[in-house]
Amino acid sequence: MHFTSERSIEDGVRERAFTLDGIPGILWTPTSSPAPLILLGHPGGLDAMYPRLAARARSAAAEGFASATIENPGSGERPRLPTADRARADLRRTLGAGEPVPDEIIDRLVLPLVDQAVPEVRAALDALLALPEICGPVGYSGGLIAVGTRLAVVEPRVSAAALFAGSFVPRATFDDARQVAIPLHVLLQWDDENNDRQVALDLFDAFGSAEKTLHANMGGHTGVPEFAGKEANRFFARHLG
Amino acid sequence: MHFTSERSIEDGVRERAFTLDGIPGILWTPTSSPAPLILLGHPGGLDAMYPRLAARARSAAAEGFASATIENPGSGERPRLPTADRARADLRRTLGAGEPVPDEIIDRLVLPLVDQAVPEVRAALDALLALPEICGPVGYSGGLIAVGTRLAVVEPRVSAAALFAGSFVPRATFDDARQVAIPLHVLLQWDDENNDRQVALDLFDAFGSAEKTLHANMGGHTGVPEFAGKEANRFFARHLG
Repeated sequence: MHFTSERSIEDGVRERAFTLDGIPGILWTPTSSPAPLILLGHPGGLDAMYPRLAARARSAAAEGFASATIENPGSGERPRLPTADRARADLRRTLGAGEPVPDEIIDRLVLPLVDQAVPEVRAALDALLALPEICGPVGYSGGLIAVGTRLAVVEPRVSAAALFAGSFVPRATFDDARQVAIPLHVLLQWDDENNDRQVALDLFDAFGSAEKTLHANMGGHTGVPEFAGKEANRFFARHLG
Repeated sequence: MHFTSERSIEDGVRERAFTLDGIPGILWTPTSSPAPLILLGHPGGLDAMYPRLAARARSAAAEGFASATIENPGSGERPRLPTADRARADLRRTLGAGEPVPDEIIDRLVLPLVDQAVPEVRAALDALLALPEICGPVGYSGGLIAVGTRLAVVEPRVSAAALFAGSFVPRATFDDARQVAIPLHVLLQWDDENNDRQVALDLFDAFGSAEKTLHANMGGHTGVPEFAGKEANRFFARHLG
């Protein structure tokens, strides 16, 4: 892990850009140290996502949490994922024709991303937990729900997850969901134009966790109300605090 | 409104029993005065419900809210409602036979209660708001969702409601729901054995409010986690604060 830049943003939060095996990332740490860590997922494209990620990191820092994120496979300046690109083109054609999206397109679009992203997030976790200013426990927040779900199954250091019930959900994610045992906080935007509400409710039902909470709010994909973000922070404070 | 007893309970909260036109009720007030008011709904039977109601009132008082509740029509020491009693017997027979519950039984069970309870709650509100230690705005919390929904439509002094998505829902409640415009916080116990989850989700969808939030948690009817109660308090703090 090589830090490439450092600056202070609001409220004494220290923001550092890094690269790890060629993957760009950002680490935000609060004034209190060592801090529990929240891994921030996102849909890909760190530059475009920066304002929302930094806002989530500042809000988490106010609760005493460090936050970190890395670029997704195939996004930003990283090499494209040709299989996912072809699946995305097929998805656009299918949606453009007003046809239902077949599972095999969703599988081709999402599963290669899950298979590559999850080991990368775990490697980032190795490097982050080696820093003296970061300690466990670790939470995972947002991003593709297929990635967060797989991570919750395979990574024992992640002890709580706040998942965003959006995007297309592969059938394999339902199998993963049944194996999840950590506390979950699931956000659902009720009128999300990019989201099948029934699939989101079915996936929430499938999670094996004894503690799982669904928070559904009005509005579209990017319209999560500010109070919902605060409730996610309190979820982490309960489980990582 | 005649106060019949008074005592201090935890944290300086003052608890007073009262009767209003023969209907028993309880008022809890915090040390800060005048306080915004939360009307506490419940399924009926003040004596049996007292521990849970007092816990909700103490939690609300910690946020600066007064709370009040009255006995339901046909419950506790109040005269029975013969139509509802007959409907309840029919409901038991239907459930015992493992048959689906027809809408007409739900209508006979719930609608007379709504028609009588809502004017009684409004009359209690008149009397409570005349007390110097109570001020607006007013919230409504819990109880039969059919009662809370009707109240949210007809009572302009209620400016936010936290509803419990349980019990049987008459068809008329869906018509009421579409007319509701105040902010709503809806609690759903995902595995509630007395609750049809799909009906609860459909009713949440039907509410006309621009701000409505669904919080679904694991467990049965009486298993609402403590953190969910705190979230409801914060909902009221946002809207009545």
